[in-house]
Amino acid sequence: MQTSPLLESLMESLRCLPGVGPKSAQRMAFQLLQRDRSGGMRLAQSLTRAMSEIGHCRDCRTFTEEEVCTICSNQRRQNSGQICVVESPADIHAIEQTGQFAGRYFVLMGHLSPLDGIGPNDIGLDRLEERLASEKVNEVILATNPTVEGDATANFIAEMCGMYGVMASRIAHGVPVGGELEMVDGTTLSHSLAGRQQIKF
Amino acid sequence: MQTSPLLESLMESLRCLPGVGPKSAQRMAFQLLQRDRSGGMRLAQSLTRAMSEIGHCRDCRTFTEEEVCTICSNQRRQNSGQICVVESPADIHAIEQTGQFAGRYFVLMGHLSPLDGIGPNDIGLDRLEERLASEKVNEVILATNPTVEGDATANFIAEMCGMYGVMASRIAHGVPVGGELEMVDGTTLSHSLAGRQQIKF
Ligand SMILES: [Zn+2]
Ligand SMILES: [Zn+2]
Repeated sequence: MQTSPLLESLMESLRCLPGVGPKSAQRMAFQLLQRDRSGGMRLAQSLTRAMSEIGHCRDCRTFTEEEVCTICSNQRRQNSGQICVVESPADIHAIEQTGQFAGRYFVLMGHLSPLDGIGPNDIGLDRLEERLASEKVNEVILATNPTVEGDATANFIAEMCGMYGVMASRIAHGVPVGGELEMVDGTTLSHSLAGRQQIKF
Repeated sequence: MQTSPLLESLMESLRCLPGVGPKSAQRMAFQLLQRDRSGGMRLAQSLTRAMSEIGHCRDCRTFTEEEVCTICSNQRRQNSGQICVVESPADIHAIEQTGQFAGRYFVLMGHLSPLDGIGPNDIGLDRLEERLASEKVNEVILATNPTVEGDATANFIAEMCGMYGVMASRIAHGVPVGGELEMVDGTTLSHSLAGRQQIKF
């Protein structure tokens, strides 16, 4: 828009959002300017606060603005002795929706990927090991994605659990192989949680 | 995300963008938090400035942070004596891309729609009339969308031009009927500009 450098810069900035090309950026900018300036201002404020204040939970690494998230600091969840390991914070959301899990989580923020140079410490396994060593953990439920990398990561963590005498289990297949955990419907996910199998070596 | 009210509020705010549902809002929020916090901060700043500083050009009503936009204040474009009337600022962009038009614009920000209570003054026709009365205008090119409402709006403006002895023309059909001007490819749009017909009463 040669009539407005500010509009041009807004359209350019909107393209940092995944799935937003030039046409959608234009549509978004016009929509906000013509019909929803207060929505645009609210979005700006949410973005500023979220980008600067949201960090990672000290215990589970999920996104939170607290030092320890509300799930990790919940006494009843601590008492369950279960830790569910997932690849991303979105997976916590998907599992919470099933209502089938009352323990705590550990978020890898990815998976092992030696070819990309992503090793155990890059996905926080040093912190998970500390927890296995210091907390009373009865079971680690491995809910990484049912992909090659997710399976390999689950196996790696299962071995680690073995060293600390902690039972490791893998959620049942039933989630479509090759898919992404967060896209699975709640029923399938419930079944795969209920049908989890202990990993034995 | 029960672990972060700020994240929840970010996902909620993102939904003010057209075409963004709960799933894409979540994907966008995670993407920014995990991989592009500086992009998110830039977007917040662009939004704040755009929402608060962008207004409408005094002469053509397009989006601009100046009192009069760069197109309207361009002496050569003033000399052309042509005004192209479009429904939205995006249409200016589409027409500028053809390189076929060197005059100025007038942006209706909509079209006449009596059933919705949108009359001539709601689409700025009082201002257009002032311009017809005070400026040397040779031709008004009516490039409203080729829809029922766009055609009706074009006819209304053509009659107004008649009262001021200003020639009015309508861009040629060639743009798909029932479509949106901004979605048309440049070649089609060039043809429809070149093949415009004077409206006679
Ligand atoms: Zn936590
Ligand atoms: Zn202007």
